[in-house]
This record gives sequence, structure tokens and C-alpha cells, in this order.
Amino acid sequence: MTDLSAITSFTRTAHPALREELEKAIAPAGDHGTQELQAMITYQLGWTGENAGPKAEGKLLRALFCLLACQAAGREWKDALPAAAAVELIHNFSLIHDDIEDNSQLRRGRPTVWKIWGEAQAINAGDAIFALANSSLLNLAETVSLKAALKAGKLFHATCLRLTQGQHLDIAFEDQDQVQLETYWQMVGGKTAALLAFSLEGGALCAEVDPKIQAHYHDFGHYLGMAFQIQDDILGIWGDEELTGKSTTGDLITRKKTLPVLYGLAQNGEFAKAWSSGEIKPDNAPRLAEILDSEGGLAYAQSSADQMTGLALEALEKADPQGEAGEILFKTARQLLSRRD
Amino acid sequence: MTDLSAITSFTRTAHPALREELEKAIAPAGDHGTQELQAMITYQLGWTGENAGPKAEGKLLRALFCLLACQAAGREWKDALPAAAAVELIHNFSLIHDDIEDNSQLRRGRPTVWKIWGEAQAINAGDAIFALANSSLLNLAETVSLKAALKAGKLFHATCLRLTQGQHLDIAFEDQDQVQLETYWQMVGGKTAALLAFSLEGGALCAEVDPKIQAHYHDFGHYLGMAFQIQDDILGIWGDEELTGKSTTGDLITRKKTLPVLYGLAQNGEFAKAWSSGEIKPDNAPRLAEILDSEGGLAYAQSSADQMTGLALEALEKADPQGEAGEILFKTARQLLSRRD
Repeated sequence: MTDLSAITSFTRTAHPALREELEKAIAPAGDHGTQELQAMITYQLGWTGENAGPKAEGKLLRALFCLLACQAAGREWKDALPAAAAVELIHNFSLIHDDIEDNSQLRRGRPTVWKIWGEAQAINAGDAIFALANSSLLNLAETVSLKAALKAGKLFHATCLRLTQGQHLDIAFEDQDQVQLETYWQMVGGKTAALLAFSLEGGALCAEVDPKIQAHYHDFGHYLGMAFQIQDDILGIWGDEELTGKSTTGDLITRKKTLPVLYGLAQNGEFAKAWSSGEIKPDNAPRLAEILDSEGGLAYAQSSADQMTGLALEALEKADPQGEAGEILFKTARQLLSRRD
Repeated sequence: MTDLSAITSFTRTAHPALREELEKAIAPAGDHGTQELQAMITYQLGWTGENAGPKAEGKLLRALFCLLACQAAGREWKDALPAAAAVELIHNFSLIHDDIEDNSQLRRGRPTVWKIWGEAQAINAGDAIFALANSSLLNLAETVSLKAALKAGKLFHATCLRLTQGQHLDIAFEDQDQVQLETYWQMVGGKTAALLAFSLEGGALCAEVDPKIQAHYHDFGHYLGMAFQIQDDILGIWGDEELTGKSTTGDLITRKKTLPVLYGLAQNGEFAKAWSSGEIKPDNAPRLAEILDSEGGLAYAQSSADQMTGLALEALEKADPQGEAGEILFKTARQLLSRRD
């Protein structure tokens, strides 16, 4: 497990309030004879059903970042709770739909919502969470100014669109022989970075600081998301199996079009030839990973990750986060960016 | 075709502005290398692809009602355009997802989005329209007060949740032997009535009239939706095939749990026996429709529709809509409520 000790004490402080905000946000789901719909939502959130608990709930990192950004930008973190809950709900909405779209059977060690309730009900439960997230966000009108609440709403909806644009590209990748690196950046920018960027920018927006500072928080979240995704791509091919708990070279076997793979394909060398010659078996995957390394795939991905990491920390410096919350943001960013699993 | 001549002249007036508002609303969808995502959306809206045109576009009734309510409540209809576009987009979002959930191949005479682009991309395109609808709604901040825009946002998100609650019940109906009439009302209240109620209430809200008047517009839309759905249920079993263009008794053959059917099942008589004995063939469906009629199913549904129609017109009276827009609302309501197809 990646060491996220820097954020632990804040998690302990904020978790009960965040949980209460989320409970308030999803309460209307069961109001019209639809208790089962609500049960689907609490299952997805990891609160109910088999193996419910902290592992099923996830780390709530996006929500915590949102609260920390608000505090570090100079305002009580509690004022950002409606935005933090909205971020967490949208994340779960996208997980429910992604799991259907990717045909995934397991999520956080449990059967996915569609595996239990069927696709039709799962699509619809995702939609319900989407609506609940939007409602939660507008509760900001009770904790910040109307103007800030409205700006947060606009940003949030634009972020949700970016998520679907990233997902659109990701699904389209599967059927494409060639994917341009430019398109990869568009995809990751939407799928991974956009919500993290909103989490931080939204927190700072709740603090109603100078828009320039809000933009630095946005950039921090954006580059953090980009760096994180590239690390994921690297670990999926060259990760330490004992640390990641996943098979090394796993992403090669499933033919995932990650950054190093796209770089390798663009070189049109031995890797590209082997890739396009057909199925990749567990046996020859390690050899393929070596070829990709020798053709520069690992170095390119690592230098990209380093670049994004640099930009993330630079943006955070510019945001100049204050107090203990600021320290936690710096430490957590460094821990996330140096992970090995 | 139901005679909707009362609204025709207004449609001619408002359509270009509504179309422009919709085009503005969906423009961001193609911004990040996702032109195909945008193409999916314009296809769903009936603007592009095979057989694009007025028939594929639909009647835009919800959007027009929204604009009319704004004007009839005393404010220029153009100020409600962001809400009208949002309503139309949410309607189309729900159509894309419903078509996947119901496994429908055709919509407005054309292949459904999932039939052309596959389920994964279609789920995601629906999500994108959802995000665009939310963004459009918040553009109200440019035409009405911040306070009214935020109230509209809250109402809109609650409406979207109601839509998913109705859809949840509708999907669940398929697997249930017995459905309580109470649950039927919950289902229709969410699936059909909620968005129509918002269309009218939202329009009046844009006019920033007394909240009591807004509530009357809401009730008008709600009961109009309820009456409309019950008529649909009646026409699906006893409709004139030449007028509806659909097979009479069609809803019996597909075993749809409509209001008359639920009433018949609750009587536990000959209809209930025949229904539960298995498949209903086109041959014996007319006989079954007769039995259901003789056991009171048609009379019950008709009296329910009459009741809802009465409540709809009473609410509209109370809303006291002004001017030409008010007249159009009254006439269109009467035309919709006396349809035979």
C-alpha cells in the first residue's frame, strides 16, 4: 500500500462530517418507494452489503483534497463539505457506469453493482447518484456566497462533461490500431485529472480566494492526476508484483493502450511489430516489456511522470497553501507521487 | 396525430431561438478531440444522421411548455431559454438510457444510439448530455436573478432524481408478479410527470412570480403528465389501431403492467387468472381486453384519467396564465387531454 500517512490524522478528523454530509445527500433516493435504489447507492459507497467497511468505501482522497484545499486557502474546511460530498458521489457515479462499460466484475474486492442488480438498474442507479451529486453541490449556497456556489456549479458540470469526454476516448481506444499521444493526453486529462483538478479548485473556490490562487489549485490537481495515471501505466508493465498485488506486465497481456505502449508503437520498431502480430501471452510478456524498455518506452513514461510531478508541485507552491492543511497537501502529494504500488 | 394546432404558431416563433440555445449548450461536447461524442448527441437530438429532421427531433413539447409558462407568468419567454434547453436535454438523456435499459431498437423511427455506437458509448453519451443539461440550466444566471437560478438548479436536480426513481420502479415492475396501484402512481409520478411538472414550474420560476403561482404551474404539469400516461395505458389496450398506428391490445401482448392491468389483477377475477396462466397471444388478446373491460379495468382507468385531467385544468386555472401564452397553454392542455392517438 502506498504510504499516505500524512493525510491520516486529517482523515480521522474529517471522516465523520463527510460521512454525515454524504448520508444527507443520498437520503432523498429512498423517498418514493425506492428503498432498493438507495440500497444500491449505499452498496456502491461501501456502507452496506457483503464486506462493507473501510476497504469497500475507498480512501475518499478526492473529497479530502477538496476539504484540505478549502482550509489551506484560508477558510474552515467544513464549508466545503457539500462540494466534497459531490465530488465523492460523482466519482462513484463514474465507477458504476465505467464498470458496466468495461464489463468489470469486481470493484474494491466486491461484485460490481451491475453484477448484483443487472445492467438496467445499474445504469439507472448511476444516474441517480449523478443527480444527487448535483444537488449536494448546490447545498454550497448554505455555506458560501451565492456567487461562489454558482461558480462551483458551473465548474462542476464542466468537469462532469470532461469525465465523459475522457471515457469516450478511452472506450474508442479499444477499437483503434493507432492512438496518437495527443489523444492519450486528452483522455487522461478527462478521465483521471479533471475530477482531481475540480476537487482542489472547488475547495479553494469555497474559500473564495483570489481566482489566480484557485487556478493554481486547479493545476496542482490536474498535474497530480496526470502524474498519477502515468505511474499507473508504468506499474502496470514494470511494477513489483509483490508490492502492487497485480501481475507485472498485466497491462501488456490485456493490450491496454497505456502511455509507454503508445510511445513504443510510435517507434515502429520491434515492439510495434510484436504488438501487432497478435495475442500477447503471459509467457512472452516479460520479454516484450524488455523490448519496450530498450526502445525507450519506460524512459519516456518516466520522464513524462517526472515532468507532471514537477508541474504539480510547482502549482502547489504557487497556490501557497497555509497552515497544517497546507503541509498535509504537500506531504500527501509527495507520497502519492513517489508510490511504488 | 393528436391535434396540437394551438401551439403551432408559438412553435414557429420559438423554435429558432430554442435550437440556437441547444446548439450553444452542446457545443462543448466536441471540444477535446471528441467530435464523435458530439455527433452522437446531435444524432439523438434528430439534427444529424439518417432521416434527421423534424420527425426525428420530436415536438419539443416540454421545452415549449417551459417557455410558455414563463411568458404566461409575466416575463419574456426568452429568459427561460436556458431552462427550456436543459429540459429538452434531460429528456434526451433519459431516452438514450431508457432505450438501453429497455433494449429498444428504434426511437422516433430511427435506430437508437446504442444500436449504432454500442452500449458503452451510448451510456457515456447519455451521461455527457446530463452534464450539458446541468450546465445549460445554470446559464439562467445570465437571464434571471442568482437566487432564481439557484432555486431552478435545486428543483432541476430533484426532478432528475425523480426521473431515476420512476425508472427504477418501472424496471423493477418487470420482475414482480404483483404491483400495488400505489407503486404505479409513484412510478408514473417520477417517469412521466416529474419532468413535465418541472418544465412548467421552472418556466414560472424564471418569471419570478409568487411561489404559490409557481406551485400551481407545477401541479398543472404533474397532473397533465399523469393524465397523459393513463391515456397512453388505455390506448395501448383499447386504442383505435388506425389512429394510434400501433396494434390494439399491444400492451397486453407485451405484458406491460399498465394501470388497467394492475386494476384487473387486483380484482383477482377471470382477467387475473388468464394473465397469470402464461403467454398472451395476439389471437386471444382482444378477448382478454374485453374481460378486463367487463371487470372494470377500462372504467377505472378512464375515471382516473378524468380525475387527473380535472386536477390539471384546475391547477392551470389557479395559475391564471396571462395573455396569448396563457391561451395556448389552456388550448394545448385540452388538446393533449382529449387525444385519441
